[in-house]
Amino acid sequence: MGSEDYISCPAYAAIEVLQEKWVLHIIGVLMEGSRGFNELSRAIGCNPATLAQRLDRLEALGIVKKTVHSVMPPRTEYELSPAGLALEEVIGAIDRWSREHLEATSKRGRVAS
Amino acid sequence: MGSEDYISCPAYAAIEVLQEKWVLHIIGVLMEGSRGFNELSRAIGCNPATLAQRLDRLEALGIVKKTVHSVMPPRTEYELSPAGLALEEVIGAIDRWSREHLEATSKRGRVAS
Repeated sequence: MGSEDYISCPAYAAIEVLQEKWVLHIIGVLMEGSRGFNELSRAIGCNPATLAQRLDRLEALGIVKKTVHSVMPPRTEYELSPAGLALEEVIGAIDRWSREHLEATSKRGRVAS
Repeated sequence: MGSEDYISCPAYAAIEVLQEKWVLHIIGVLMEGSRGFNELSRAIGCNPATLAQRLDRLEALGIVKKTVHSVMPPRTEYELSPAGLALEEVIGAIDRWSREHLEATSKRGRVAS
């Protein structure tokens, strides 16, 4: 049945993660290298509670790796796991497609809707 | 500012379309060739009102092309535009990543959350 296919489709699971507000942005910043929580927060510009929630989700999914350094004060560092780094291909494909096809039609889309 | 970057990012616009329930499924069926509304409805298994709404959205975005044939009874046919066909690369990349990385970590994700 259609709805079961929908639920079991792994592509939907990935899109479900990526479509959350700030997630692409967080991954984009971490593509450049590991970041502390405050650095990330400044780079992203979203509120810290939202950022913490997104990072927890990304960590649970194995996309982000969190390391707590036992220094004073304790320092928490976030970096992309191999799975997170592999998202570069996905985000690149989405980005290329959007630039080539969606921007050109977005005006048409707005007129038609 | 972060939130402006977010809004102007074309990748988010693409993900916003693809994450709507049934959209990947509709595109997947149309990758195989053009379909009439009833054929699509049977293949997808969602209700016709939802299907019509998704097809309107995809047509407005230039992803789907709709042709009305002046026969009796009138026949409406849906096919992917070049932009729609180009989504194959995007969906392929998402699908590969999900299978390689997300399925392996989904149990961990559930345990951790």
